Amino acid sequence: MLDYFKISKEDTVIIDESDLRQATKDIFLKFGLSESNADLCTDVLLHADLRGIETHGVSNMLRTYVQMYQEGKSNPNPNLKIVRESFTTATVDGDGGLGLMTAAHSMDIAIEKAEKYGMGAVAIKNSGHLGAAGYFAMMALPHDMIGWCMTAGGKGMIPTFGAEPQLGTNPIAIAIPTNKKYPFVFDAAMTSIAGNKIGLLERMNKPILAGWVANPDGSPDMKGGSKAELKIGVTRNQLPLGSTRELGSHKGYGLAVAVDILGGILSGATGFPGLAVNRRGHFVAAYKVDGFNSISKFKDDMDEMLQGLMDTKPAPGHDRVLYPGLEEGEEEDLRRKEGIPLHKEVVDWYSQICGELDIPFKYN
Amino acid sequence: MLDYFKISKEDTVIIDESDLRQATKDIFLKFGLSESNADLCTDVLLHADLRGIETHGVSNMLRTYVQMYQEGKSNPNPNLKIVRESFTTATVDGDGGLGLMTAAHSMDIAIEKAEKYGMGAVAIKNSGHLGAAGYFAMMALPHDMIGWCMTAGGKGMIPTFGAEPQLGTNPIAIAIPTNKKYPFVFDAAMTSIAGNKIGLLERMNKPILAGWVANPDGSPDMKGGSKAELKIGVTRNQLPLGSTRELGSHKGYGLAVAVDILGGILSGATGFPGLAVNRRGHFVAAYKVDGFNSISKFKDDMDEMLQGLMDTKPAPGHDRVLYPGLEEGEEEDLRRKEGIPLHKEVVDWYSQICGELDIPFKYN
Repeated sequence: MLDYFKISKEDTVIIDESDLRQATKDIFLKFGLSESNADLCTDVLLHADLRGIETHGVSNMLRTYVQMYQEGKSNPNPNLKIVRESFTTATVDGDGGLGLMTAAHSMDIAIEKAEKYGMGAVAIKNSGHLGAAGYFAMMALPHDMIGWCMTAGGKGMIPTFGAEPQLGTNPIAIAIPTNKKYPFVFDAAMTSIAGNKIGLLERMNKPILAGWVANPDGSPDMKGGSKAELKIGVTRNQLPLGSTRELGSHKGYGLAVAVDILGGILSGATGFPGLAVNRRGHFVAAYKVDGFNSISKFKDDMDEMLQGLMDTKPAPGHDRVLYPGLEEGEEEDLRRKEGIPLHKEVVDWYSQICGELDIPFKYN
Repeated sequence: MLDYFKISKEDTVIIDESDLRQATKDIFLKFGLSESNADLCTDVLLHADLRGIETHGVSNMLRTYVQMYQEGKSNPNPNLKIVRESFTTATVDGDGGLGLMTAAHSMDIAIEKAEKYGMGAVAIKNSGHLGAAGYFAMMALPHDMIGWCMTAGGKGMIPTFGAEPQLGTNPIAIAIPTNKKYPFVFDAAMTSIAGNKIGLLERMNKPILAGWVANPDGSPDMKGGSKAELKIGVTRNQLPLGSTRELGSHKGYGLAVAVDILGGILSGATGFPGLAVNRRGHFVAAYKVDGFNSISKFKDDMDEMLQGLMDTKPAPGHDRVLYPGLEEGEEEDLRRKEGIPLHKEVVDWYSQICGELDIPFKYN
């Protein structure tokens, strides 16, 4: 993670994983989720908090989900239906459930198909926010498969040359198994920064940097300094990855359109630009490594490649070269042992919501 | 295309498509390609020239291929072998042929598998440069499939935080069918600009812009102005899409690693970092739309979405908002009628090589 987003020590409260897991699960149970779905949704959120992806863990997202349940805007017990299917593909109607559930159950289907036929993919409509897309891609790893997850929805990104937002931040996640190394896990919004990072900055009272958002007329803000503000439903005009046409923003924009098509149009979610804030489409896929290569050779070659990247001579001012998934894997090991650092404002929110819902929570 | 790359009128010679096609095919035939492979390779190159992708058409690439054939570094009659296979997947040994051939024949296999099972994918090793990756992705379109093509190889990109190149520019192409609109065709290097654009700039005697390459110590060159120089085998340290960590270069870098894994490691091409300049790996895939959605509804929704993007209010200084494939589709219509504009230096090269090989060529 960029140092810019690191929470300062004095704003941090360390919470034990099991305590955070229990409180989070209890919250989901209070809103009527089944035991297994409450466990699943908790696991998706904690996965992000354990791996240092604060933007998609309990901090930013749980309060949004709670508000949606309170307002009856999300179905706590969705009845997923396969509405179209082939040997390797399916489209799932998520029945208005959170993506945390619908994407996980759909990835199970994709993995089952890939086990039989070599590949599997599921497009999901009528769903909600799914948290960190990397979770669902990583579900493929224990099966020695390459996992994909993309999610479309919201209106945060302006197209290159455009003056108004038309697309979500539309992340792409790819997880690839290794032998001894932390697995390769890419998970990134196709904007120059994830939408939730703006919420994180607001909590930290820090301005937005150059190249992240557009000026009010749509032109790229390459100066930075504007105030970060997160409000549900407020559109922030984020720039595609690449920021300006000269730096390649048409690439971030183009990939975001592809994600919107795979998650939104392919699943028949809604017509464009109908993907409103709380209606999302996803796409998950699994490729079985064994259908291409010997698994042991592939995983050994992966280790060798990732080590090769780590062995790259670093540029001035940097200690080492990373690969996607390396820092997250290290952070997960550390946080499982030493606890999860949360911003004190997040702990205050837990205290408050646990108080309201009559759930025990010992930190405050 | 960025205006910066447009060839000036006085440097341009207009060549009729059929004349350029005949001369190019004759060149391939002289080096021993079969009639059908000469047609195929010509079609892949002309496709780029017709669609305004000068970087990957006859201008930059044909002379490289000619040199490789002259030096015996590329097999003009490769005997492709499927070395591993499942219902939906395969790995192909390209027998040292140009990717122009090996990727096309492999995409045929992926499409055949997708026709039967809903999805198909082929990883290709022991292959050469494949030209514009979009060509192979677009092969899926007449079959009402979504096509993918990625290609790994070369050493042009430095990892984020790194000081030396470790990866190719590793383009990703995705083609998605439409009803009445020009199809969605994304095809872009995961560097901030394609490697071949540096050759194009050299021909135009223009400097490299900010955010495209690294300084000699590996730090991002955010000032620009350095001389463009293309030499076969010379590594230019290009920056990943995103240019700096703050602007998201870890995303371009991460996607490039994923491409290297899918094209290079999955196919068993060579161990990392063994993908030298003339040894490449590719990955192609096809997803059958019918396995997810009604084809007619999907294609109508695609038209609606792409029109929605075109209807985006433009930012100051821009006439309209594009989508990937729009300008290329328009350009193809125009160039089929009015001819293909080539830089006069390219026409001089054609005159020379056609003279050497005793091939008729009427432009000079």
